[in-house]
Amino acid sequence: MNNRRDFIKKITAAGALVSTGCLALPATSCSAAGSKTDVALNISLQDGLTPGKSLGEKLDYMEKLGVAGMELGGGGLAKRVKEIKDALSGRKVKVSAICAGFGGWILADDPAVKQKCIDSVKEILVAAGELGSTGMVLVPAFNSQHSYPHTQETRDRLVADLKELGEFAHKNKTTVILEPLNRGEAFYLRQVADAASICRDVDSPGVTCMGDFWHMTWEETSDRGAFISAGKYLTHVHIASRKRRLMPGEDGDADNYIDGFKGLKELGYKGYVSFECGTKGNREETVAAAVTLLREQWKQA
Amino acid sequence: MNNRRDFIKKITAAGALVSTGCLALPATSCSAAGSKTDVALNISLQDGLTPGKSLGEKLDYMEKLGVAGMELGGGGLAKRVKEIKDALSGRKVKVSAICAGFGGWILADDPAVKQKCIDSVKEILVAAGELGSTGMVLVPAFNSQHSYPHTQETRDRLVADLKELGEFAHKNKTTVILEPLNRGEAFYLRQVADAASICRDVDSPGVTCMGDFWHMTWEETSDRGAFISAGKYLTHVHIASRKRRLMPGEDGDADNYIDGFKGLKELGYKGYVSFECGTKGNREETVAAAVTLLREQWKQA
Repeated sequence: MNNRRDFIKKITAAGALVSTGCLALPATSCSAAGSKTDVALNISLQDGLTPGKSLGEKLDYMEKLGVAGMELGGGGLAKRVKEIKDALSGRKVKVSAICAGFGGWILADDPAVKQKCIDSVKEILVAAGELGSTGMVLVPAFNSQHSYPHTQETRDRLVADLKELGEFAHKNKTTVILEPLNRGEAFYLRQVADAASICRDVDSPGVTCMGDFWHMTWEETSDRGAFISAGKYLTHVHIASRKRRLMPGEDGDADNYIDGFKGLKELGYKGYVSFECGTKGNREETVAAAVTLLREQWKQA
Repeated sequence: MNNRRDFIKKITAAGALVSTGCLALPATSCSAAGSKTDVALNISLQDGLTPGKSLGEKLDYMEKLGVAGMELGGGGLAKRVKEIKDALSGRKVKVSAICAGFGGWILADDPAVKQKCIDSVKEILVAAGELGSTGMVLVPAFNSQHSYPHTQETRDRLVADLKELGEFAHKNKTTVILEPLNRGEAFYLRQVADAASICRDVDSPGVTCMGDFWHMTWEETSDRGAFISAGKYLTHVHIASRKRRLMPGEDGDADNYIDGFKGLKELGYKGYVSFECGTKGNREETVAAAVTLLREQWKQA
């Protein structure tokens, strides 16, 4: 592919690209470091982990806690749009992100598998857009999914494919959200700064990234640094306890998110902080306790 | 190799690793974001770019400008230790980092080439230690250097080899400094956060990392985020103009380092900011003008 050569040309040819050292941050973050006090914490819960037998009961529980968003799986979403819209009608809770649910994977070296990914992602994006969702979470490839080798050519191919998906997502008023995982799950994309640099290379308003505190625990040296690097590309955050991926707080003192929250506040982050985790306790209680803990730590950040 | 399985075991076995979300930052950076005013800018110049026919003339020039450090090439350094020590005797200028100069490369899939790297790095580290240097700059592999594929196994191998070099460096009171380059030169290691995560995995006081504003221009979305992620592992910084790799200032408004300087100040960075660049102007003037520009921007950060 030519992208690599083009890139090398760009950086050797004088003046092709201009950097101010502040490319990905909103102006306010550049002009003044330090936390802001007026940034709201918008908590979201995945529907699967929320107590309640029906969508209605789950939404009742969320509203009782003042939870702002509900994250849904992407599988079969297209057929559920009306049901979900009806359930949300007159509620304060909104759809946050759509978590995966597509077929295939985008780094597949088998063109049929990649096409399956693109087609099913687009179907979910249409539904996500109709539901007013931030975007659909996408992992480029899990370790078990046979893919192109980790080279510049593969990166260029990924950027081109994401451009197509990003433009499609943007037309549908939503985004694709790249999610870095820990190396045990997905070696290809492990760090938030790398996801952000892919977003920069794609250069489409429909391609964004996220950080998941669970994976960041193992891959980032600084939660705050990671979020600052994500900058304007950051549209979603996942959270869990930091030892066993349970509800925040279930792992005691390890469950400290203050440094990361400082970064989110510095960015003026407007997205959701969404629970993706299990629990070892009584779900009704552990979810509520976690929400309280996060609000407390947000204040401290 | 077993590291990968061990890692997966670690993150699935409860409580094996504890993260506070603040692993790599000094306590002061965690407790309060925002720039510090009492952090000094220690400027360093590579000897090759410094005006002057002899080491003595170059040191005279540096002292006139108040430059704190001199960066030297690692090639043949062992034989130059006495000459350099003599030249620095009674001077304010100290040796900053040692820039490469070793043979082979550490990611080589040819064991003889890797061994050549390890042996020659150790020779340079001994000299670097004798000179009181921060450390020796190491690029794991340039694109043209045939290497193991970019996989977890290669990362584990790198971490093991760096552990050996790091312990050796530490015994010699110096460090190995991992340098990320732009993708056109070294796709394997492009981002400061990735270099920092390698340092964390190696877990040796003798393995550290650096950021080079030139490469960061192309690979980072946030200079400040990158440096914050580097945290306590950051021991060196390179600088150049941001379009053509000339003296800072020669590319006009593009040469803005304030966002990155903010990050360095937040870290309480004590290392050097060292020039690695060419010039299109009169060297005596462009170096001096660049030093003035950086001091001005440091104040603004």
